[in-house]
Amino acid sequence: MTEQTAAAPLSSLSPAELETFLETQRTAYADLQAHGLKLDLTRGKPSVEQLDLSNELLELPKGHKDSGGVDVRNYGGLSGLTELREMFANLLWVETEQVIAGGNSSLTMMHDCLVQLFLHGGPDSPRPWSKEETVKFICPVPGYDRHFTMLGNYGIEMIPVPMNEDGPDIAAVRELVTDPAVKGIWIVPTYANPSGAVCSQEVATELASMETAAPDFRIFWDNAYAFHHLTEDEAKSVDIITLASGSGHPNRPLMFASTSKITFAGAGVAFLAASKANVDWYLANQQFASIGPDKVNQLRHVQFFGSADGVREHMRKHRDILAPKFAAVDAALESALAGREVATWSKPSGGYFVNLDVLDGTASRVVELAKGAGIALTPAGASFPHGNDPRDRNIRLAPSFPVLAEVETAMAGVATCVLLAAAEKLSGAQG
Amino acid sequence: MTEQTAAAPLSSLSPAELETFLETQRTAYADLQAHGLKLDLTRGKPSVEQLDLSNELLELPKGHKDSGGVDVRNYGGLSGLTELREMFANLLWVETEQVIAGGNSSLTMMHDCLVQLFLHGGPDSPRPWSKEETVKFICPVPGYDRHFTMLGNYGIEMIPVPMNEDGPDIAAVRELVTDPAVKGIWIVPTYANPSGAVCSQEVATELASMETAAPDFRIFWDNAYAFHHLTEDEAKSVDIITLASGSGHPNRPLMFASTSKITFAGAGVAFLAASKANVDWYLANQQFASIGPDKVNQLRHVQFFGSADGVREHMRKHRDILAPKFAAVDAALESALAGREVATWSKPSGGYFVNLDVLDGTASRVVELAKGAGIALTPAGASFPHGNDPRDRNIRLAPSFPVLAEVETAMAGVATCVLLAAAEKLSGAQG
Repeated sequence: MTEQTAAAPLSSLSPAELETFLETQRTAYADLQAHGLKLDLTRGKPSVEQLDLSNELLELPKGHKDSGGVDVRNYGGLSGLTELREMFANLLWVETEQVIAGGNSSLTMMHDCLVQLFLHGGPDSPRPWSKEETVKFICPVPGYDRHFTMLGNYGIEMIPVPMNEDGPDIAAVRELVTDPAVKGIWIVPTYANPSGAVCSQEVATELASMETAAPDFRIFWDNAYAFHHLTEDEAKSVDIITLASGSGHPNRPLMFASTSKITFAGAGVAFLAASKANVDWYLANQQFASIGPDKVNQLRHVQFFGSADGVREHMRKHRDILAPKFAAVDAALESALAGREVATWSKPSGGYFVNLDVLDGTASRVVELAKGAGIALTPAGASFPHGNDPRDRNIRLAPSFPVLAEVETAMAGVATCVLLAAAEKLSGAQG
Repeated sequence: MTEQTAAAPLSSLSPAELETFLETQRTAYADLQAHGLKLDLTRGKPSVEQLDLSNELLELPKGHKDSGGVDVRNYGGLSGLTELREMFANLLWVETEQVIAGGNSSLTMMHDCLVQLFLHGGPDSPRPWSKEETVKFICPVPGYDRHFTMLGNYGIEMIPVPMNEDGPDIAAVRELVTDPAVKGIWIVPTYANPSGAVCSQEVATELASMETAAPDFRIFWDNAYAFHHLTEDEAKSVDIITLASGSGHPNRPLMFASTSKITFAGAGVAFLAASKANVDWYLANQQFASIGPDKVNQLRHVQFFGSADGVREHMRKHRDILAPKFAAVDAALESALAGREVATWSKPSGGYFVNLDVLDGTASRVVELAKGAGIALTPAGASFPHGNDPRDRNIRLAPSFPVLAEVETAMAGVATCVLLAAAEKLSGAQG
């Protein structure tokens, strides 16, 4: 994806030229180390400036009743506050009765669903998944490490398929779902973690309508970045629930979202959206596993946003803070790596990550070098099941948390590490 | 427990006297119905007046950092805020490193533990509980219905033992734990739901030290009412964790508590306290199952309470509101039932419930009659596994939510229902 410039591809250099280049990068790296940096690009955390956008929440709610007169301070209401469900039903293009407003973590709602599928099975399961000999999941890669850790933790066999620019490789998926042991797929459909890919209407339609050998095949549709646009060209998340319902598989998708990267990352509200049968199934178990969600925090969010448009408006403020950081990542990589043919990277129009693919076999070395220069990166391979990137080339960059100047400094450093690792590799030099 | 008065035991009346008595009660009941009441004694919910005690929380926290400089608005910190853990470690008589401050529901933390034991097993488990042929739990009765529902939901066989005034019948427990399939016991140790019993140091010592056939036997120590005193004679919860550690079974107890009935019932903070091995075990799974607890709400609680003594002081305000309601329950039952020998009831010194035992075989009828008069009671048998009270005599009364005058009205009505049902039963009349 990098544009051509005056710089020559590293692979085209003569041995002598490569030796000189390697020395130059070693010097650059020594300089980098001398700066004594301490920068962190590991996780998709909102910055302080972003968190400040929601500080009004610290003084809410005004009063303690919702518009229906519910005293939010007391027990009751497993589904969450109606007003908040209505607001996010609108934003997620679903019906209010299909939405549950939960606690502060959509990851917890995903885990709840997986645990229930294991211990009870879903509405269409012949038996609990724990009673199956093998359970397999399709894992588009690169993907979100915690999804994979959760699957691995429950002994689920993970089958990687490529995550393309329009979603998971649907031909590969179609073939895999002929195996009745394949029970699900995990997808971040909008501005995927880490590639930034957006699942297209066409791919989603196939996912929703394809025949699967497992009658209880589940799409874990983790719409974590549904509203997290980086440009004015705002991607509209596909309405997978209606698609699935229209193709006779209403219970196939489980959609998740949260305000973790809208308001406060630790103190937001999470949402589950699904068919009525799935909603009832989820609530049946929550009945003895929870006293219900924190409705005070939900009312706080209702008052803070005011409306679905309030959420959209709020997200534009995030965009104004985030877009320059993503531009800085691209500029730093472009400036140092263009023409060298040792790396490609995504230019996402939303989400929290840049996906950097370096020369095969050098990702671990790049992360190691960066660490040695005080720049923390997500471990190489983290975006693959069991942390195993077979080509050792993938690095996830998370530029949201540091301030802009730090992103610039860190990314110039990362580019140096990419070049040094590539020169080492090509010249056969020891790291 | 009722005192003797002029009223004669119902069983001592002649058939003619009993017929007259029955007619009197029928008339009283008709009067009751004519009042068109709509009162609810079903659940242990705090009253509006109690919730108002914590309204300052609606304007907290001031700022967004804890005393260690942690920005509570962002991700991170699975164990919860240190200050809050310290505060509740003090209150629960344990070490800070033994405490996790979690989300808004201790029931969820109990469920998390049970699910982990099922899917992974605990630190001392030879295998996950789901791989055992049978899993049994000892259930002191009467007990908390949601505990039983949770166990039943996972197919755990429940073995009732009597809940005595000093805790579960320890002789019965000792015999049961010789069965390796018996994996645990659920206890509300302080002001038990619903009997109000307080587990004694002696009983707790035996529970902590007894030999169990299962190496991973667990005491689910649900200390929901640890600080919920109704008199100045404040029961001190037994330190089961130190007892168990001292007897060589450090991982046996899992202690739970929450501020649900201290601050806001839906928006409090829950706690798990246990051995370091159990704490690590719990956190290992939370790592991919949660983004961490709501630290903003935890900071809110830190600032609201100020200190452990702040919690104790706050609980005295609850006591001042609750104690008159419990006195009203006792007075109403005493006034109508004394000497009739058709009911006994607890006079708890803490907690949220009064345990009412009526004439064998009449509890369901009493609840039905009450419903017919607009007084909602917890279903008869709810305090037993599978809702099955073999003597059909147990009714749980929850007087916290209604205002005092309503408690008086409702309980006078309940007493009428108790007498009518007893008279029907003794006279062989149809209901």
